[in-house]
Amino acid sequence: MSDLTPPATAVVDLLGMLAFGELVAFDRMAADARLAPDLRRRAVLSEMAAREITNYRRLSDRLAELGADTEDAMRPYVQAVSEYHQQTEPADWLEGLAKAYVGDGIADDFTREVAAVLAGPDQDLILDVLHDSRHADFAADELRAAIAADPKVANRLSMWARRLVGEGISQALRVAAERPSLAELLAIGGTDFQALLRRLTSAHTARMGAVGLNN
Amino acid sequence: MSDLTPPATAVVDLLGMLAFGELVAFDRMAADARLAPDLRRRAVLSEMAAREITNYRRLSDRLAELGADTEDAMRPYVQAVSEYHQQTEPADWLEGLAKAYVGDGIADDFTREVAAVLAGPDQDLILDVLHDSRHADFAADELRAAIAADPKVANRLSMWARRLVGEGISQALRVAAERPSLAELLAIGGTDFQALLRRLTSAHTARMGAVGLNN
Repeated sequence: MSDLTPPATAVVDLLGMLAFGELVAFDRMAADARLAPDLRRRAVLSEMAAREITNYRRLSDRLAELGADTEDAMRPYVQAVSEYHQQTEPADWLEGLAKAYVGDGIADDFTREVAAVLAGPDQDLILDVLHDSRHADFAADELRAAIAADPKVANRLSMWARRLVGEGISQALRVAAERPSLAELLAIGGTDFQALLRRLTSAHTARMGAVGLNN
Repeated sequence: MSDLTPPATAVVDLLGMLAFGELVAFDRMAADARLAPDLRRRAVLSEMAAREITNYRRLSDRLAELGADTEDAMRPYVQAVSEYHQQTEPADWLEGLAKAYVGDGIADDFTREVAAVLAGPDQDLILDVLHDSRHADFAADELRAAIAADPKVANRLSMWARRLVGEGISQALRVAAERPSLAELLAIGGTDFQALLRRLTSAHTARMGAVGLNN
């Protein structure tokens, strides 16, 4: 962790991005729950979606403590995040799960890296609102079972995951260009960007392999 | 409250109906949140949706305590509840709010009547999972403001509410015919059905009038 205190605007930018991410993740998981093959799975995904809103509330409360308006703090991310989701609408239950598994995995890894730069309460809050492992475990189990039942599924989902990553990167670059404060936040922490990208990529490859998908 | 203990199957039937109602209400409110005119309102509705899932979890836990499988207990209601929602898809934010206001109001009134027949823990649980008044207050405020801004909205929403009630009644009659245990539950409590219908109707009329809609 850096000795320098990150500027308040950068922290508000970061919390706003995470808050909007939670609001949209809620929306998407609630919609994906409808694709579930049975009521039990539908309920599991609905409960996971609801948890995103609990996290949204905590981030929004913290923004208020910092004197920021949540809606204002979220607004810069609406277009990029919404476009990402419009470009990656899952066609079925497995695509929805693969999207949550791949996308949340990368988002959580990135968030953990940024949190390391922050101090005390914000760091604790952000580490706390990461997706809990139950979510990834549920998605991984479902994906593994589907691939075991029909190995052709692995190819289709591997291609789908590549599309998700590609679309995610192009929207992330757009946000980075428009909100330099987030890049500055990492720079203050002395983050080596190339090393960061290598860590994110190798964690992503390991996650894909763990469920039988190729990167 | 009756001296007779309601049969366990009737209680399971009732909890199953409420559990599925919560799961679907979650889904619909999450979808309606996307129709919100701004991020603040979207977040408010998303948080309300998430609360339905907390209620679902409590009902599901109680079903497990009674030795029942939640999925089995919910299954009889899937078709009627899903058809009600398919027939009453809101076209915009105000129709979504009017649907929640009108539909949840009647559903809560009915649930309260049934709860009166039950004993101890089930009665407490059911009274506890009723929608809290914040929800109705939010919807009522939005509806009143929209009607004040454009009085023509009142006619459109009044007709919409009549469609909701008509569709709700036809699905409720279907469930009542297929699941006699629920009617028996009320009969055990000595409920006068005609008086019950009058109470539900007059509460509905009062709710409509409170936001400027005609029954």
